[in-house]
Amino acid sequence: MKNYQKIITKIYNDLKNIDDTGKIANYIPELANVDDTNFGIHITTIDRNFFGIGDSKKKFSIQSISKILTLTLAYQLEGEKLWKRVDVEPSGNPFNSLLQLESDLGIPRNPFINAGAIVVCDVLISHLKNPKEDFLNFCRILSKNPDLNYSEKVAQSEKSSGYRNIALCNFIKSFGNIKNDIDVVLDFYFYTCALEMTCKEVSEIFLFLADDNFTNQEGNRVLTMSQAKRINAILLTCGFYDESGEFAFRVGLPGKSGVGGGIVAIHPDEFCITVWSPKLNKKGNSYKGMLFLEQFTTETESSIF
Amino acid sequence: MKNYQKIITKIYNDLKNIDDTGKIANYIPELANVDDTNFGIHITTIDRNFFGIGDSKKKFSIQSISKILTLTLAYQLEGEKLWKRVDVEPSGNPFNSLLQLESDLGIPRNPFINAGAIVVCDVLISHLKNPKEDFLNFCRILSKNPDLNYSEKVAQSEKSSGYRNIALCNFIKSFGNIKNDIDVVLDFYFYTCALEMTCKEVSEIFLFLADDNFTNQEGNRVLTMSQAKRINAILLTCGFYDESGEFAFRVGLPGKSGVGGGIVAIHPDEFCITVWSPKLNKKGNSYKGMLFLEQFTTETESSIF
Amino acid sequence: MKNYQKIITKIYNDLKNIDDTGKIANYIPELANVDDTNFGIHITTIDRNFFGIGDSKKKFSIQSISKILTLTLAYQLEGEKLWKRVDVEPSGNPFNSLLQLESDLGIPRNPFINAGAIVVCDVLISHLKNPKEDFLNFCRILSKNPDLNYSEKVAQSEKSSGYRNIALCNFIKSFGNIKNDIDVVLDFYFYTCALEMTCKEVSEIFLFLADDNFTNQEGNRVLTMSQAKRINAILLTCGFYDESGEFAFRVGLPGKSGVGGGIVAIHPDEFCITVWSPKLNKKGNSYKGMLFLEQFTTETESSIF
Amino acid sequence: MKNYQKIITKIYNDLKNIDDTGKIANYIPELANVDDTNFGIHITTIDRNFFGIGDSKKKFSIQSISKILTLTLAYQLEGEKLWKRVDVEPSGNPFNSLLQLESDLGIPRNPFINAGAIVVCDVLISHLKNPKEDFLNFCRILSKNPDLNYSEKVAQSEKSSGYRNIALCNFIKSFGNIKNDIDVVLDFYFYTCALEMTCKEVSEIFLFLADDNFTNQEGNRVLTMSQAKRINAILLTCGFYDESGEFAFRVGLPGKSGVGGGIVAIHPDEFCITVWSPKLNKKGNSYKGMLFLEQFTTETESSIF
Repeated sequence: MKNYQKIITKIYNDLKNIDDTGKIANYIPELANVDDTNFGIHITTIDRNFFGIGDSKKKFSIQSISKILTLTLAYQLEGEKLWKRVDVEPSGNPFNSLLQLESDLGIPRNPFINAGAIVVCDVLISHLKNPKEDFLNFCRILSKNPDLNYSEKVAQSEKSSGYRNIALCNFIKSFGNIKNDIDVVLDFYFYTCALEMTCKEVSEIFLFLADDNFTNQEGNRVLTMSQAKRINAILLTCGFYDESGEFAFRVGLPGKSGVGGGIVAIHPDEFCITVWSPKLNKKGNSYKGMLFLEQFTTETESSIF
Repeated sequence: MKNYQKIITKIYNDLKNIDDTGKIANYIPELANVDDTNFGIHITTIDRNFFGIGDSKKKFSIQSISKILTLTLAYQLEGEKLWKRVDVEPSGNPFNSLLQLESDLGIPRNPFINAGAIVVCDVLISHLKNPKEDFLNFCRILSKNPDLNYSEKVAQSEKSSGYRNIALCNFIKSFGNIKNDIDVVLDFYFYTCALEMTCKEVSEIFLFLADDNFTNQEGNRVLTMSQAKRINAILLTCGFYDESGEFAFRVGLPGKSGVGGGIVAIHPDEFCITVWSPKLNKKGNSYKGMLFLEQFTTETESSIF
Repeated sequence: MKNYQKIITKIYNDLKNIDDTGKIANYIPELANVDDTNFGIHITTIDRNFFGIGDSKKKFSIQSISKILTLTLAYQLEGEKLWKRVDVEPSGNPFNSLLQLESDLGIPRNPFINAGAIVVCDVLISHLKNPKEDFLNFCRILSKNPDLNYSEKVAQSEKSSGYRNIALCNFIKSFGNIKNDIDVVLDFYFYTCALEMTCKEVSEIFLFLADDNFTNQEGNRVLTMSQAKRINAILLTCGFYDESGEFAFRVGLPGKSGVGGGIVAIHPDEFCITVWSPKLNKKGNSYKGMLFLEQFTTETESSIF
Repeated sequence: MKNYQKIITKIYNDLKNIDDTGKIANYIPELANVDDTNFGIHITTIDRNFFGIGDSKKKFSIQSISKILTLTLAYQLEGEKLWKRVDVEPSGNPFNSLLQLESDLGIPRNPFINAGAIVVCDVLISHLKNPKEDFLNFCRILSKNPDLNYSEKVAQSEKSSGYRNIALCNFIKSFGNIKNDIDVVLDFYFYTCALEMTCKEVSEIFLFLADDNFTNQEGNRVLTMSQAKRINAILLTCGFYDESGEFAFRVGLPGKSGVGGGIVAIHPDEFCITVWSPKLNKKGNSYKGMLFLEQFTTETESSIF
């Protein structure tokens, strides 16, 4: 087995003090308060070996990384019908763009841009009695971790400045692809974005995408193997907005970023790795996180290609 | 080892007589003359086992599948500088769209849409003394197959109706991203699209993307391992125009289609598979070819995810 | 002087029973309840001669025609600074499109598409103590007509189905070009759309755009002559959404339509004419209204060109 | 009658030495050689009074102003069928944009953007035996001026750098809306752009758009009155690309600009005015020309609104 601890330590040290040209996300006031020197990495392998370094056990706002979790639960509950509500194509546009919805008649290009994740939240609300509690519970059972929680502060902060997301939700509703009340959908969406986890926790909760035999705390599969693979496929083509191609090209793993500065990447049958560094490049993805993962897959030759 | 012959035979028989709702490409007159009942499959594994069925040894026009070959040679000659001329992002638009070039200032989104492949041809012309001969020679040495050739008829047919491609080339030149004469660039581009191969030949020529130890007829590597992986990554995110996400989702392999009805797909470290069936779905990809590969990767569990 | 009564009577009779291929607006429930056989015309000349026929004294929902009134008051209060908040260019897109706002960074193309009128309402709210009352009062004094009023039913109906407008308003706010609370802005906007007038009342209230010497009930000019001419110019280039060119081409007068089926047109120094017929063509403009005005300006040779 | 000579002299002197922030067109090499301090104005009234100042009798390249002339002849030859080939709507986009053609399936938005003028040239070629000679002859007879001619140098210069126009023409042909050979169409189009006239000659040749009783050298009407008015309408909504609304707003007359720095404006029943100053604003319209016309219509109160 590869000496992951040695490899991540080396890259961590290489990158810790480089000139980080990224900028911390400031459109959500609460995120702008985070110390931007945080830098943590954690790997969990499918045989449950753990390797961490830096701020890997500090909580951070996982933001859009939670879009994988809402998608997973919606896919479980709705099955293949889900894809009538949201497509699986890369958008070629920024994460919060409204452009394509107009010609696509309210069907978002994929579940990992804001428009798509809002539709996924709408699907969940139609299924769940208490969406916020039920979804949190799903996450806790999935990760065998009762400590997971939303940050109330971040959730409120998202709400107070979420004009673009309110616009998206109303726009989609004008096409009939939001079934529930806008306020309810957005409130739920903002909470899902406000989930907080450590690098360690993130790399544990997404093990179900790496390990074909994964079962949750209750001993159940979360998705069929085929469904899990399909989520990996969408992650690869759509996980980094209009930088998805670049991530596939440089890193070569399915993955997802959040504006909190976290990135999770999955090597099927091998491991799940999480990097957290708050400063973002121009496309909204962690500057140092992208660099770390590129060096990591190069040194470990762990691309899926 | 899996019994590929049995599996492809079964799926071939399942699909041979289904109602094919696709339409043969008719915008290139010469392609419209092809018998649309052709249906062939060929697999070549990295340890050089071969499995074929149907019309797997008939020549067909590989069309856009040749974009992988021009890219490969340009990458070999130009190295990473190549990516200043063409990006690696999915476009979210049809194969011959001019839309994004206007805001992207003449840098095509990726080398697998027409705009990108035309820029790649321009790069090759700047490097090669006799572009058409030299490129054909590269293909023959790559596949250890002296029989490969262009179809003169198809090349002429492309020229006579290639207004959209002429528009693309001039549009890009207006931004300065074509360095050579338009007529020379387009003539070369039309010839590369007019390469003819059998399913067997296609699955042999792309072995270098599946086999890390591949060498050509002269005993040389074609690309570094990292470069080969990167081409696979671009194939996965961009190989099927605005249906790339769907192909990744359903099939889960890097691949490329052509309007001649061919599709090639690569399973790194395993095999290269080619399907040919001329009738195309609305996105311009072989209707039966897509179905075949979906069933094939499902039955063999050979997705990279 | 031309015999307007004879001319409008003739055209009215010609068109009354033609096959009207238009469709009544149904996206605002309350509008769908209107009798679609209504057909009225009224002309007021600048020397205060009146000519009417058909349902010219029935109230109808003037809808987007009110955008001229909100613009006029905002222009009066804000002066030329107004044009920093909204441009004066035709959009080349449908009335409720969000597309251009993304590249134009939240500055609507003109005040006669929904996006622009919403920004104008925001400007008014910043100036007025009681926006709804003050604006209504402005309209009454402008037209010397104390009977003007909003339809509460229509205003409520707009609200209940105004997702696209809510999206527009939030989208613009995300760029910082809405200063007040979204709810307040939209409530005011929906009320302005719900103004009810007869053809006669409409052709009276817009006399200030035809008559250089116009004064309101209090004896005041509403705008300078130059400002009034500028509003006419914007009406000509932008009054009919993506059919503005067609209206200028066929009718040749500045004008504005509403989805209630009304159209007002102004001949500077001559008259103001209003036509009402509820069924709309595909671009959202009154089918019969367009036909009427084309025949009218042809027979009277009253184009401004 | 107004003292036009005094008024234009005053404004000419006011503007002659202002800081001109415009830039001379440099994408056509030959145009970049023009002395950018040229500044001329000429008015011709419908009763044939003449007023000129500055460089009003120097020849300049009228460029896109010639689009009115090609349209006029095509309208004369083709009648209302012409509008099946080209629309009359403002585009909301730059003069050489390809964007809308894709969704509009090859029908240009209007005859005053390059795409539309190229289609108009194609229509003319289908009607004329010797397009270049016949069109030049039409212009000479229209203006009673045998001296009009093309600049061979400019025509060649356009050709050598006209990639964007070649792209447009091929793109439109791919939709079937160009009927003749691309080379023939573009050669003719480039020549029409290369017409040279003085301010005086321009304001004479367009008198037919101001004077309802105009006849050419052979005593014939050029268009019906209704057709001439329609051309004025299209000029008002589309004559200045994506600055058309601004020109209508500031100047209030139908008009057309060219990248040679000329602008012609028409006051129906009054006069035709031409201004020439080579430095262009960001939208491609003469910086000083726009200023001159704004001041001129303000001082003479000659807006059509």
